[in-house]
Amino acid sequence: MTANQWAVGVDLGGTKVEVAHVDAEGRVRMRLRRPTDVRDGPAAVQDEIVAAVRDLQGSGGNSPIAVGVGVAGQIEPSSGVVRFAPNLDWHDMPLQADLSKSLDLPVTVTNDVRAATWGEWLYGAGQGCTDLVCLFVGTGIGGGVVSGGQMLSGCSNTAGELGHITIDLHGPLCHCGNQGCLEAEAGSWAIARRARQAISADPVAGASLLEMAGGQPEAITAKIVAQAAHAANPLARQLIDEVAQALIAGAVSLVNDFNPCRLILGGGVIEGLPELVEKVDKGVRQSALAAACSPLQVLPAQLHNDAGVIGAAALAMRSRRSD
Amino acid sequence: MTANQWAVGVDLGGTKVEVAHVDAEGRVRMRLRRPTDVRDGPAAVQDEIVAAVRDLQGSGGNSPIAVGVGVAGQIEPSSGVVRFAPNLDWHDMPLQADLSKSLDLPVTVTNDVRAATWGEWLYGAGQGCTDLVCLFVGTGIGGGVVSGGQMLSGCSNTAGELGHITIDLHGPLCHCGNQGCLEAEAGSWAIARRARQAISADPVAGASLLEMAGGQPEAITAKIVAQAAHAANPLARQLIDEVAQALIAGAVSLVNDFNPCRLILGGGVIEGLPELVEKVDKGVRQSALAAACSPLQVLPAQLHNDAGVIGAAALAMRSRRSD
Repeated sequence: MTANQWAVGVDLGGTKVEVAHVDAEGRVRMRLRRPTDVRDGPAAVQDEIVAAVRDLQGSGGNSPIAVGVGVAGQIEPSSGVVRFAPNLDWHDMPLQADLSKSLDLPVTVTNDVRAATWGEWLYGAGQGCTDLVCLFVGTGIGGGVVSGGQMLSGCSNTAGELGHITIDLHGPLCHCGNQGCLEAEAGSWAIARRARQAISADPVAGASLLEMAGGQPEAITAKIVAQAAHAANPLARQLIDEVAQALIAGAVSLVNDFNPCRLILGGGVIEGLPELVEKVDKGVRQSALAAACSPLQVLPAQLHNDAGVIGAAALAMRSRRSD
Repeated sequence: MTANQWAVGVDLGGTKVEVAHVDAEGRVRMRLRRPTDVRDGPAAVQDEIVAAVRDLQGSGGNSPIAVGVGVAGQIEPSSGVVRFAPNLDWHDMPLQADLSKSLDLPVTVTNDVRAATWGEWLYGAGQGCTDLVCLFVGTGIGGGVVSGGQMLSGCSNTAGELGHITIDLHGPLCHCGNQGCLEAEAGSWAIARRARQAISADPVAGASLLEMAGGQPEAITAKIVAQAAHAANPLARQLIDEVAQALIAGAVSLVNDFNPCRLILGGGVIEGLPELVEKVDKGVRQSALAAACSPLQVLPAQLHNDAGVIGAAALAMRSRRSD
């Protein structure tokens, strides 16, 4: 591909779709955000994507060579059928075929977290690396794994559900139904739950944290807990320490399982609490096997919210080349 | 390779070495076992291997085309240097080069559990499968992972240390220094520890189990606990139920991480308690993500103690072919 070729990267979520012009070096040159309303139905959501891609096409000189779409859901690998996307309430939606027909362009649909892992691998903290694990800690926790230079996909394309490893078999219930998943201990919804439980258990110790949420327990978020921890609130610091211990336990599992050269940490919780990267680094070196740790680097993700659109576009460009 | 070609498979442990004639279909045609005494030094152990290989050579018609050796330790991938083998007390031992020189044959050295995974993959419960996880539950717990048709090795060739995933971050200490590893909850040494602790905590409930160990707490083994459980001893049944819960928690992590088509369970604990395979199957389907479980089969390993020699020989034959 030549230097002025580009692709469209799409990050499709339940409330908005982001559509970006991504150049051949993995840089976002322009982006558009549109609201999505799942109640309008899949056709309306697809129309939004098509309109946004056409707007991007109209603004540049040449046309994109391909379109990559990341969707939070289970995707069938070659057909790009969205098997199930809970946020969109989609089942067996032939998104790749539909968009390709509407846009008359090659389209590649992949899981959104897998797309973000592609982004970090090719253009972020994973560049040049053949063995890496990306762990994205946001509302939920997801990830992706590159091993021996291959992105792992697994038997039904769901490999890398790293938020749903059990780190405490007697631990709290996860949204997925399992007990003590990493996500149920360190995802931002779990951090808010931890905070509400701690305040309820010890209202005196929790008074100042509760005040930061306007006195409403249900208004407590991971962001508020992070802010309180940075303001030296003792309860918040303890909660964040528990989150760090959970992330370390999960990271130990991942390092011993996959033996990556790099463990890359991203997502909103890490961005709000960047000190977690160093804590995980230190904790993993104490508790994972020495032979697995010796080559390991623990690094923050580099592409922030752009990882998904960059990775989706990069994957689409690669798919185009390998056709 | 032709049908009458064969290779030698070697399983090198701290107290014995097993050396087998393995044919082109992965069948053991003859085997020799020799004691190893690490106190005699590495040269003596290597001499035992060489003598056993020569005995096998002498007994058959044609010569083997290659020798594969599985060693419990950390192996450097292409050189076959044994970086560290705790049971043998070896550090940086050029085993592959030394044996190749002594035997004048191509030699491939690999980790023993990795070798067993090769065996199950090529000739056991994993035949024809491109995505599988082998979990061997013995004194320790180890494993191997095949994903997208590739055996995962990781950044420093230690991928697949599946016994050292954290399943209970507040759990008991593991030999590796981490807390709540799968091995520290379900390996046979951990089962014996569980039993001793339970008897000590409730001597009345533990009396009959202790009696089966001749009244000596330190004589309790996982095997005795398994026998007692099969004889409907209530405490032993409870202990085995806890082991099953631990294995399920670990299996959930592995299924969500790797999304294998097959999860293959082997090793002495599974052979002594074959009902664990069904319990893990049922438990994983309850607690792992539905999308990861839908294609999953949970199966017992097929090659039993031969997986290591068969896999080591098969790997050596493959290495020979790809030269």
